[in-house]
Amino acid sequence: MRKKKRTVFIGKVPVGGNNPVVVQSMTKNPPSKLNEVADEINQLASVGCELIRVAVPTEKDAYFLSDLKKKSILPVVADIHFDGRIAVKAIENGADEIRINPGNFPQRQLTDIIRAAKKRKIPIRIGVNSGSLEKSLVLSASSLADSALRWVKRFEDLGFSDLKISAKSSDAAMTVKTYRILDEKSDYPLHLGVTEAGTVATGAARSAIALGRLLSDGIGDTIRVSLTGDRVDEIAVCYEILRSTGVRNVGARLVSCPTCGRIQIDLTRLAQEVQKIIERIRMPITVSVMGCAVNAIGEAKDADIAIAGGAGYGLIIKKGKIVKNVREADLLSEFKEELIKMELL
Amino acid sequence: MRKKKRTVFIGKVPVGGNNPVVVQSMTKNPPSKLNEVADEINQLASVGCELIRVAVPTEKDAYFLSDLKKKSILPVVADIHFDGRIAVKAIENGADEIRINPGNFPQRQLTDIIRAAKKRKIPIRIGVNSGSLEKSLVLSASSLADSALRWVKRFEDLGFSDLKISAKSSDAAMTVKTYRILDEKSDYPLHLGVTEAGTVATGAARSAIALGRLLSDGIGDTIRVSLTGDRVDEIAVCYEILRSTGVRNVGARLVSCPTCGRIQIDLTRLAQEVQKIIERIRMPITVSVMGCAVNAIGEAKDADIAIAGGAGYGLIIKKGKIVKNVREADLLSEFKEELIKMELL
Repeated sequence: MRKKKRTVFIGKVPVGGNNPVVVQSMTKNPPSKLNEVADEINQLASVGCELIRVAVPTEKDAYFLSDLKKKSILPVVADIHFDGRIAVKAIENGADEIRINPGNFPQRQLTDIIRAAKKRKIPIRIGVNSGSLEKSLVLSASSLADSALRWVKRFEDLGFSDLKISAKSSDAAMTVKTYRILDEKSDYPLHLGVTEAGTVATGAARSAIALGRLLSDGIGDTIRVSLTGDRVDEIAVCYEILRSTGVRNVGARLVSCPTCGRIQIDLTRLAQEVQKIIERIRMPITVSVMGCAVNAIGEAKDADIAIAGGAGYGLIIKKGKIVKNVREADLLSEFKEELIKMELL
Repeated sequence: MRKKKRTVFIGKVPVGGNNPVVVQSMTKNPPSKLNEVADEINQLASVGCELIRVAVPTEKDAYFLSDLKKKSILPVVADIHFDGRIAVKAIENGADEIRINPGNFPQRQLTDIIRAAKKRKIPIRIGVNSGSLEKSLVLSASSLADSALRWVKRFEDLGFSDLKISAKSSDAAMTVKTYRILDEKSDYPLHLGVTEAGTVATGAARSAIALGRLLSDGIGDTIRVSLTGDRVDEIAVCYEILRSTGVRNVGARLVSCPTCGRIQIDLTRLAQEVQKIIERIRMPITVSVMGCAVNAIGEAKDADIAIAGGAGYGLIIKKGKIVKNVREADLLSEFKEELIKMELL
């Protein structure tokens, strides 16, 4: 059972309360690379990203936020470190939320940041991080959670409570413990994430272990999976975690066999191409891509649409019924056509 | 707390009892492609694979098993469907275990298979699968678990109990429920896996959710992560799951940042290369690859060895101390050299 938190609005997107767990990512480009960052945002939005964070390292980037806001179809969270003046400029230029690690700023600047956020009525995410914990503290789940909660108290004392909290570590077990403490001790919405999780395969696994455990226990209002790699993978992994924990059933689930000595088709490439195609689907369907007869018919029975590969050809199967038998070269285009007929693309 | 199961031996590798959870994978090539499959096995063994399964689709492949056994440094599990004669040949030709889904075979052949396995004293994995459940049953966690347990009973009635069980489904929640039933109702060692989990990123996440939950609850004696992609990723994900659940702390853990608008180095490529290098390390160390100063120093403090990237250069840091400042082009070779000095490679 998810414990009910306060609700904050990032642009028009509500986070917390009874709202669905929100999926977010972060761009690789800063706002001053306006076209590049807008392209990134469009691509991520098309696969289901609902909130976008951008690093704002310079004052110039802060000024570019107002242009980016005109181009972005997603609410924009500005990520700022070290310099409160950049944070204020980011707010003034239209950021829908800012994320700061308050310990990184000259303390006298916090009141300026809070004043600016109040004026534009935007929330602040207090995001502490195992890599930048106050130097006086020994890193542990409780010191990390306590650090976040102390900052929350400080902001409340300064009259600001439109807050969201994150306290990420690069270790799965520490992440789980930290957020359990935050969930117990606070009713602000929680942004879950494992920081610096690694490259795609192992990073997805580490994030899934930690976020899966927390979400299964009803903890978490928005999530980010951070992978060193393609951002589209981050979104796909977020939705896979939400589906596999039963928290939010959105998007197409791919069932594809790992290939073995029985395979007579280039299944890896086929599955990767299918994965790319179905990432745009929001309906909760199951798509199966199998390389041989051993499991294909059984799995296809439970799939909304399936491909079963043979030697140089493939079957397209809908709800267990074979609808097409096509050459390997035509499989993807025929598959796409069927998705369009089903009004999924 | 892991419930104690019986122990079976696959070659010299014990599975069950108090033994470490064993990591396994499956080759893409059949035994008749002798050199290719031997290369696959060597590569997988070098990154920590401890058991290898090979599909044996034909009698010819069964005969090649005796040659493969001479070349393989890992115990070989033969995966056989439909034809009991191939299973018998595989056993006679040196398979260290066979995996069958008994419902796939003419029932009169089971006694032949059992006789052959008894004679050579090798175990059998009874592996049922959501894709090939008896047609009379409606797929659910309990029907899947019951199907496996009925086969176990049948094998016991036929006088054979050197068994391991798996009951895989392509759904994470069903996998968790199925294995909980098996764990409760049986004391045979359990081989965990999500079948046909999908491509690398989402497949790793789905497997991690299911296997992570089970292993955290003390269930599972050997694991396979099945991904449509590179087998080396499967092994890396297995170890990441074992580390992140605290079940088995083996191998190097990579902490690498996801890159953002602050980055001035090709971090994705760097992290992927570092991941490849450290996959051969068996010592439980932490390696950090960070793109900028924001989290680099903090994370590097907790890493055994770290790379912190700048604009065209990088620092190599050991236990928080900067040991080298090198050009971007030399980073990987210098990093490798440090690992060799540390006797990790």
